Amino acid sequence: MRDFPPPDAGLRRRVANRILDIYAAYGYEVIETPALEDIGVLVGSQGGENERLIFKVLKRGARLQEELARGGELADMGLRFDLTVPLARFVANHLNDLPMPFKVAHIAPVWRAERPQQGRYREFTQCDIDIVGEPGVAAEVELCSATLDVLEKIGISGCTVRLNDRRILRTAVERYLAPLEDPGPVYVALDRLERVGAAAVKEELAGYDQAGVAALLKWLAEGDISLGPQDVAADLRRTMEALVADGRSVRFDPALVRGMGYYTGQIFEVSHPDVPYSLAGGGRYDGMTARFGGPALPMCGSSIGFERVCDLVDTTVFGGGERKVAVTCAGDDELLGCLRVARARRARDPDASFSVLRRARNTRKQQEDLRKLGYTEIVDGKDFDRP
Amino acid sequence: MRDFPPPDAGLRRRVANRILDIYAAYGYEVIETPALEDIGVLVGSQGGENERLIFKVLKRGARLQEELARGGELADMGLRFDLTVPLARFVANHLNDLPMPFKVAHIAPVWRAERPQQGRYREFTQCDIDIVGEPGVAAEVELCSATLDVLEKIGISGCTVRLNDRRILRTAVERYLAPLEDPGPVYVALDRLERVGAAAVKEELAGYDQAGVAALLKWLAEGDISLGPQDVAADLRRTMEALVADGRSVRFDPALVRGMGYYTGQIFEVSHPDVPYSLAGGGRYDGMTARFGGPALPMCGSSIGFERVCDLVDTTVFGGGERKVAVTCAGDDELLGCLRVARARRARDPDASFSVLRRARNTRKQQEDLRKLGYTEIVDGKDFDRP
Repeated sequence: MRDFPPPDAGLRRRVANRILDIYAAYGYEVIETPALEDIGVLVGSQGGENERLIFKVLKRGARLQEELARGGELADMGLRFDLTVPLARFVANHLNDLPMPFKVAHIAPVWRAERPQQGRYREFTQCDIDIVGEPGVAAEVELCSATLDVLEKIGISGCTVRLNDRRILRTAVERYLAPLEDPGPVYVALDRLERVGAAAVKEELAGYDQAGVAALLKWLAEGDISLGPQDVAADLRRTMEALVADGRSVRFDPALVRGMGYYTGQIFEVSHPDVPYSLAGGGRYDGMTARFGGPALPMCGSSIGFERVCDLVDTTVFGGGERKVAVTCAGDDELLGCLRVARARRARDPDASFSVLRRARNTRKQQEDLRKLGYTEIVDGKDFDRP
Repeated sequence: MRDFPPPDAGLRRRVANRILDIYAAYGYEVIETPALEDIGVLVGSQGGENERLIFKVLKRGARLQEELARGGELADMGLRFDLTVPLARFVANHLNDLPMPFKVAHIAPVWRAERPQQGRYREFTQCDIDIVGEPGVAAEVELCSATLDVLEKIGISGCTVRLNDRRILRTAVERYLAPLEDPGPVYVALDRLERVGAAAVKEELAGYDQAGVAALLKWLAEGDISLGPQDVAADLRRTMEALVADGRSVRFDPALVRGMGYYTGQIFEVSHPDVPYSLAGGGRYDGMTARFGGPALPMCGSSIGFERVCDLVDTTVFGGGERKVAVTCAGDDELLGCLRVARARRARDPDASFSVLRRARNTRKQQEDLRKLGYTEIVDGKDFDRP
């Protein structure tokens, strides 16, 4: 988990606002959901490996004592590990008040109890857009297109969309292993291929026919789109053609799995040549609303890894150019006087910032720090003009 | 805990941005801290009643099993209950990278495990500004002044600042009870006076001299400022005079306590005639950084209750006036075609929003829902002009 000191936090705010403004131009409406969900919402949500990484919140008071006494469930809530599961819960709860199809944007932190390692954080921010109620590939096309548009407009160009469909993957799994009632665990294992290597994946799939696993891994390396059911392959081609017509760089990636068990159709990730991880990803997860008592609606979403894009963002596009004036004062009377002047100046000059503060003993260090924060003028309190 | 559906969440975003922009004009720099803090940061932080309301996060894996076996501490982290304690921890951790004095803004959710009751939520957002490193009343004056400015500019005028000083309160407590090593618990009890009444407070203070408690409660009802140490009373008068000179409505309130034990000097709350609770509050909590290994710095802050002001905000000031076009389409081909047209239209018309979506079976309900979301035009896909 991390703190974000001033210049970084300011940049994050400006990037987040820019992203939401671009998504608003596409018609995505902002929602907010609470960080804590009932534990039953999160557990059993087919969140794959992420479900094992839930930060669980202790029950409180007498209830906790009871559970301790009888060795029961100690947690009643958990911090969300993504924004997709909470969205499905939200849609089921508010169905009557939502337009349909519902185009929604959601930017918020999520939490995963990962072991600390380079580039992985236990609190990070996702920036999701989703379309609820659209069964056709128009959803996938717009979500990918809007996501790439956002990346380009914040200064990250040259991205590629890798696409696959869970049903093609499923066909491959069924052909090389066997028809499975729940292929989720196989997907979770295959998703780790790039990170842990083929040997570790084979080990994880030890319960399956080993010749089949080998053939499956071979197919993942070079498989072609036409393995899948005809209509599925045709839809995937349609998505790709529409994105190509839009000027996007796109390719079919049979080894693209995405860890979550909840995907039901097309899935995608957005890569950039400068980094080894994807910047965004998503897919179709039709019917998740049914888990929460709603009808089984078509749902499809795309999620940007906010910290990942903030690291790559063109900082010259964000901020800078503001007039920031620091007024440094010698004592209490000067401070109170300058506060009043600053108030009048702000009214006259609403685009500038006027910060009144006590002059530090180490004047040079203070001035350097202020320059680092983007202060363009540093004025002595005595010289701060009267209104 | 609550969800915020589209029109509300959009309003919240615009209000938050407006608040931060106004604070930026005063020179407050934005920071972010994680929602989870080590439990040791939160417990023992003199957070008063709030410490009893911490949502604690379960330890994980083998460590949890160990603690269960030996009946040890089950939680290693907790969700912050305010932004003040995390700020002190942040300042101690990043001292060398921060300007001094440091003027900081922080808007984020906090969590308290309150029993559900009207107007109290277990997740809510605070919007804090703090000045670190300023020992004089200029800090209190600017924080109050900036807070009132924000409220006025988002359409909430007619507010009053009620002021007190913990040291005047302390003098009263010492005079009527006895010199106490830690008056914190007495403050916490007195803070509940308005909510629970004098009888309940007397009961809570049963361990103290009852005639003294009665005299103290009498003083709280009518006490005057000159009881406090002379310099303390003089400083409080100075703060009030500066705010009056700024055109603010201000009064001394001897019964103002604020629940947290960590305040060391002036404290204040902002009231509005339309609501029975305060919209903002804060005070001086010098030296809190020392708990986290830093030097004992002067610190003073003001916190706006974000949901409370969002309820009162003048909604006509926020949003509205945008051009929002919905393009409703009959089928897949029309959808894909209109997506392309919309892309071109956005480029030509960057201030408008174009949302392409499938026409619902219940056209009238869809149109009503879109109008509620602020759509100004609803266009048939066939009539959406080509680029």
